[in-house]
Amino acid sequence: MRSTTTGKPPIEEVLAGEESRRIDAYWRAANYLSVGQIYLLDNPLLREPLRPEHVKPRLLGHWGTTPGLNFCYAHLNRMINQHDLNMMYVIGPGHGGPALLANTWLEGSYTEVYPNVPRDEAGMHELFRQFSFPGGVPSHVAPEVPGSIHEGGELGYSLAHAYGAAFDNPDLIVACVIGDGEAETGPLASSWHANAFLSPKQDGAVLPILHLNGYKIANPAVLARLPREQLDSLLRGHGYTPYFVEGDDPAPLHQRMAAALENALADLRTVQHRARTGSEHFEPLRWPMIVLRTPKGWTGPAHVDRLPVEGTWRAHQVPLSAVRENPEHLRILESWMRGYRPEELFDERGRPAQDITALAPSGTRRMGSNPHANGGTLLKNLALPDFRDYATEVTGHGSDLSEPTRALGRMLGDVIRLNGHERNFRLFGPDETASNRLDAVYEATDKQWGAETFSTDEHLAREGRVLEVLSEHLCQGWLEGYLLTGRHGVFNCYEAFIHIVDSMFNQHAKWLKVSHALPWRRPIASLNYLLTSHVWRQDHNGFSHQDPGFIDHVVNKKAEIIRVYLPPDTNTLLSVADHCLRSRDYVNVIVAGKNASPDWLGMDEAVPHCTRGAGIWEWAGTEGPSEEPDVVLACAGDAPTLEVVAAAALLREHLPNLRVRVVNVVDLMRLQPVTQHPHGMPDAEYDALFTTDRPIIFAYHGYPWLIHRLIYRRTSHDRTHVRGYQEEGTTTTPFDMLVLNDMDRFRLVIDVVDHVPGLGARAARLRQLMRDKRIQHRAWIRSHGEDLPEVRDWRWPY
Amino acid sequence: MRSTTTGKPPIEEVLAGEESRRIDAYWRAANYLSVGQIYLLDNPLLREPLRPEHVKPRLLGHWGTTPGLNFCYAHLNRMINQHDLNMMYVIGPGHGGPALLANTWLEGSYTEVYPNVPRDEAGMHELFRQFSFPGGVPSHVAPEVPGSIHEGGELGYSLAHAYGAAFDNPDLIVACVIGDGEAETGPLASSWHANAFLSPKQDGAVLPILHLNGYKIANPAVLARLPREQLDSLLRGHGYTPYFVEGDDPAPLHQRMAAALENALADLRTVQHRARTGSEHFEPLRWPMIVLRTPKGWTGPAHVDRLPVEGTWRAHQVPLSAVRENPEHLRILESWMRGYRPEELFDERGRPAQDITALAPSGTRRMGSNPHANGGTLLKNLALPDFRDYATEVTGHGSDLSEPTRALGRMLGDVIRLNGHERNFRLFGPDETASNRLDAVYEATDKQWGAETFSTDEHLAREGRVLEVLSEHLCQGWLEGYLLTGRHGVFNCYEAFIHIVDSMFNQHAKWLKVSHALPWRRPIASLNYLLTSHVWRQDHNGFSHQDPGFIDHVVNKKAEIIRVYLPPDTNTLLSVADHCLRSRDYVNVIVAGKNASPDWLGMDEAVPHCTRGAGIWEWAGTEGPSEEPDVVLACAGDAPTLEVVAAAALLREHLPNLRVRVVNVVDLMRLQPVTQHPHGMPDAEYDALFTTDRPIIFAYHGYPWLIHRLIYRRTSHDRTHVRGYQEEGTTTTPFDMLVLNDMDRFRLVIDVVDHVPGLGARAARLRQLMRDKRIQHRAWIRSHGEDLPEVRDWRWPY
Repeated sequence: MRSTTTGKPPIEEVLAGEESRRIDAYWRAANYLSVGQIYLLDNPLLREPLRPEHVKPRLLGHWGTTPGLNFCYAHLNRMINQHDLNMMYVIGPGHGGPALLANTWLEGSYTEVYPNVPRDEAGMHELFRQFSFPGGVPSHVAPEVPGSIHEGGELGYSLAHAYGAAFDNPDLIVACVIGDGEAETGPLASSWHANAFLSPKQDGAVLPILHLNGYKIANPAVLARLPREQLDSLLRGHGYTPYFVEGDDPAPLHQRMAAALENALADLRTVQHRARTGSEHFEPLRWPMIVLRTPKGWTGPAHVDRLPVEGTWRAHQVPLSAVRENPEHLRILESWMRGYRPEELFDERGRPAQDITALAPSGTRRMGSNPHANGGTLLKNLALPDFRDYATEVTGHGSDLSEPTRALGRMLGDVIRLNGHERNFRLFGPDETASNRLDAVYEATDKQWGAETFSTDEHLAREGRVLEVLSEHLCQGWLEGYLLTGRHGVFNCYEAFIHIVDSMFNQHAKWLKVSHALPWRRPIASLNYLLTSHVWRQDHNGFSHQDPGFIDHVVNKKAEIIRVYLPPDTNTLLSVADHCLRSRDYVNVIVAGKNASPDWLGMDEAVPHCTRGAGIWEWAGTEGPSEEPDVVLACAGDAPTLEVVAAAALLREHLPNLRVRVVNVVDLMRLQPVTQHPHGMPDAEYDALFTTDRPIIFAYHGYPWLIHRLIYRRTSHDRTHVRGYQEEGTTTTPFDMLVLNDMDRFRLVIDVVDHVPGLGARAARLRQLMRDKRIQHRAWIRSHGEDLPEVRDWRWPY
Repeated sequence: MRSTTTGKPPIEEVLAGEESRRIDAYWRAANYLSVGQIYLLDNPLLREPLRPEHVKPRLLGHWGTTPGLNFCYAHLNRMINQHDLNMMYVIGPGHGGPALLANTWLEGSYTEVYPNVPRDEAGMHELFRQFSFPGGVPSHVAPEVPGSIHEGGELGYSLAHAYGAAFDNPDLIVACVIGDGEAETGPLASSWHANAFLSPKQDGAVLPILHLNGYKIANPAVLARLPREQLDSLLRGHGYTPYFVEGDDPAPLHQRMAAALENALADLRTVQHRARTGSEHFEPLRWPMIVLRTPKGWTGPAHVDRLPVEGTWRAHQVPLSAVRENPEHLRILESWMRGYRPEELFDERGRPAQDITALAPSGTRRMGSNPHANGGTLLKNLALPDFRDYATEVTGHGSDLSEPTRALGRMLGDVIRLNGHERNFRLFGPDETASNRLDAVYEATDKQWGAETFSTDEHLAREGRVLEVLSEHLCQGWLEGYLLTGRHGVFNCYEAFIHIVDSMFNQHAKWLKVSHALPWRRPIASLNYLLTSHVWRQDHNGFSHQDPGFIDHVVNKKAEIIRVYLPPDTNTLLSVADHCLRSRDYVNVIVAGKNASPDWLGMDEAVPHCTRGAGIWEWAGTEGPSEEPDVVLACAGDAPTLEVVAAAALLREHLPNLRVRVVNVVDLMRLQPVTQHPHGMPDAEYDALFTTDRPIIFAYHGYPWLIHRLIYRRTSHDRTHVRGYQEEGTTTTPFDMLVLNDMDRFRLVIDVVDHVPGLGARAARLRQLMRDKRIQHRAWIRSHGEDLPEVRDWRWPY
């Protein structure tokens, strides 16, 4: 192969004999340590013949991918030393935990974080015993492993994480191993295109290493079975120059891998050098990558029980499954481990030999100690403007209209301006930033776009703080990688389609939960979701775009991690957003409207209301200063708030003696008891807000059951009647959506009449009137009537 | 370009002058009807000059993709007629609803389904008015549109649906338009590889049409900006021969499109012919595809308000946004519509001209009437074996162990055998079928695999009933496409990773919900999920693999659609599976274990228990025949059932006078009131099971709040204490997982002691003993102790 970008002939023989020997020794040491972790409880250096009791009673772990990961690690170490590289390692097949544990122990990073696992025989004993063992360490590259930002158990997100880490780190190279199994997933398949968004000037580089070991758990991998020419065509089509390193004989493979990495680095430097010194005119970039084709379970047992293992799917987990019981398995294990010649690799005290540790970089150049992989250590506070500066003026509660996200867009524009020199804030979105009415950010920045541009394009540039790609997976993966390496960001998305990343959210929330318990992992910026174009306002798309269930999904995760906000108007949204941008180690979900809707609170009211998270809106209700109300109308979300205020107005007019309290909830987690969520309200406070004995009609943005779940331990639970989205919808008017789901103002008034006892004849007449209004509305819709334009008005229909 | 598979020169001029004119007229008619739907309330044939009141007050719809969809439809019609093709049309950019409404109306399919929209002026008036209008039809290609199996609002699933439809339909060609926006999504990116699984012999063909109109909502599309050579390389790398059709001048484009389709069909027939007549030896297949590059909003206004519209993202939705208010917009609209020369296209009664309708195929050859797109009309009942034949023998309640999914695998193997000739059942899985212990199916069939095979491979064949690919998105998309075209299937998946398809499930559930209300859409087979390798038994993977929240996600959808089953052992799993395979129009979620676990019920007990869905296990409890129990121990799921039975045994020994009732729930929806779910239990029945006044300790498989949600209207709700997964986990032992999440037998006994009043000193001592057991267990884990092997035994720890 030729390096297409440099035009120079490729480098083919780069390792001198001694270097080749040492790199092989390093690799054997890592392999030895990997096998030891999977199998051994005792006798780590095989000082005596292996006996069944030296072996773990339960064998758990993944061998298949591990020797390949070790091979890459050894060669990347060499490159780091050779070229003084700032390099991180993202491991797609992160279930190959033994590899990273072995390598970080070999290079010393592991012991620095975990002094109870020293680099000697006692440490090796503990390294082995703790692995995938009760009370020990997980079998995957979990948050516990230094140097990692990626778990790799679920598969699919490695390359997106790698690009996220590379953005705005111009000196960083993120080596990213992609398993051929992982390569079949959708998120990974779309991640190849991330190179169309990377700036070779201001961002770092990603070096993908596609590791074709040929098999998944039980099947061959698609990419591994493509004809070589077709695979080459595919990867070039993705915009990469692939360097193929293929074989199973270690000696020539070391040469080929070293040469391929040298070629790749030369290409990568050429791309960067041109961009950083040259003109701005467009030329398609071609980034290098490695294709490493080696046997699955390489260097492991070739056959077990007469079946082929090395080079097949049978090597995926534990090649020898019955070592304690089967003497032949025990024999194979011992000969396998001794085949690495541990006596050459470790000294008499069990320390890795000097010439092996010399191959590892030192200090923060070690991949296990690279500060980017413990992003909290690099995190700087955002410079934030005063969010009050973007306030909308409120002449009276509900008298004016504004578009909440539009104001937020102006604020985010200034966040971008103020942190421009730090380059540590980005806005991510699946082609929806303008649709979500955040387009004021384009006065401060552009959308980063590395492909060709046309004269009709707007706001596209080689560098910009906004990343837009029609893949929620990429947005989420990039943002996670960006946050985990110590930066800040917001993901704006249509509410319904955030479910696309449900599982990615799960993994990030789990990562945060585990990291919380690791003092050496420093806090990182929260993952902020701005969900808009929400269920109640998807007028022109209809049913497929209507789903408020992400909140339900989120609240299943640990309370320490998750926060949910439903600001009802512009000023509350600004206040909430400011709070979220300052927070650490959370997942913040903000659901807000983009359409013109009533401004309820001036900024002077919005700030204390958001600080409390929930409060009484006296101006909307009709309770006297000292009496208990007859009924509480509660609301969370912009559409429910409008309907509740409108219902309260109807009640004020028609039942003037009824004392109505209106409670608005911004911070949903306030509803939970303080024992269940850090934001939870003490019972006394809750009861003061919601009363202890009056009916509560609660209009909620999402599926109604969630409110029941959050409040089920409250005294007033049985008296709380929740309205929300009932999975009814189509392409229709906003008000019709409310009627279809029984959350319109008329329905809420009926609920009040039905639940407040002793209201008498006037209330019965009101109930009938409300019922008629609903029937009339539906008849109107059936006859293809259009909605009244005043639906946004809480005074409608007077 | 050359056709690489035939070696023949490509066809370049295929349309005679008259044919070219007619196809253009057809296309103009469809475009005219599309614009009319978006804009017009009245004056559909422009018989009078356009006035503001003829225009809809609210303009909602997507124009940008529509002319391209119309172009494809017209040309595919021609191909169907020319070659008598059995062809379906899957529209990735399904938000381009006007296109399919226009075409199915033109060809007559629409009017056959909706006689209220005849093919005349009155019908055209209604076609226009109803579109994206309150009380009308959705703006997308929703279930209401005949000929469609794909909504297309969310984007990403078209190609997977197309392949799903093609499996086992050897005569079918599924034309699949993929938008360049959609092509950025992960699921679509991975779908290209579906050709590695398609059998050219026994399956039909998919003809992808990548439509590069250049833009998404507000951004250029990545694939549209790749250099042509790179795009070609990419698509060839995916295994396709791309035929490029590029330009904006209709006349030559018609020729090019017709030629490209002829070439593609020739290639496709060559691939199929070789496979169907030739040898079995492997050769890489190269399927044809079309790349259609035309301007976004083609034939629409070039400029509006001095900004370019046609060929830019501004054409995405409604190019003219203020037609009622802005006379210039009105003028442009009129001239745009008149530019299609409606007077040539429709006769004096508004009927499409004869030579236009003649271009459409007739009967079921029309894509809007293809029976595959209304799969229920083709659906045949599965031939099912007697599930009792796979029963495990039960010598006593909990005396024996078996692996539930292993028995199910044997049954599914026979389902495959019995329906082999019909070829209408498939098993889908992301490389987990063997891991999920369903591998007995490989005695009946193979895994279908179209790429190269090696001698070490097992159970791979050119045709097989099992499809395994490491993409939950592909599994789900294929299965949906397979079901929607009238076949049956099961998706087996690790429980945690089914969240990857949360959003796809949403869309399918919404599709089913809407279809229910359409009598012409016939019922289809249910979508069956078998979730195993579940949260309580992910010992060697740990935290990333532990998430039981899919059930929570599912129950947010309409009760008519969703069913959730938690069979606690082998025989109940068999009974539940049989029930699900017979059902229609549901989404069935079955969560079951794969590990050896106690058999609780013989088949004679399992069947009535599953039929009831929930029941008392007298043998496990200690209540007398006539008395009320003191406490109810309820369980749902295999791990909770084991712990509840163990807790009941502990109570029997230590508190022999306590009357304990054990209730097991298989059908989770039984817990809901009958008013909320068709399977819901009447209150009287529920109270008879759970008592009206005794404490209930409920051990549940998933997040505990779900049980509260399901039962919150029950009398006994406040006395129900639920244990479940609390998002605690790591790589540890099964029993430790239970302790970490407070659902172990000891904890349940403590709960009983805490909630049953007046138990006295003996109970207090028992409580202390249980507490000690838990502390002892944790100490043991902390000291790296291994789990007792007997954890599977409910009698442990005696």
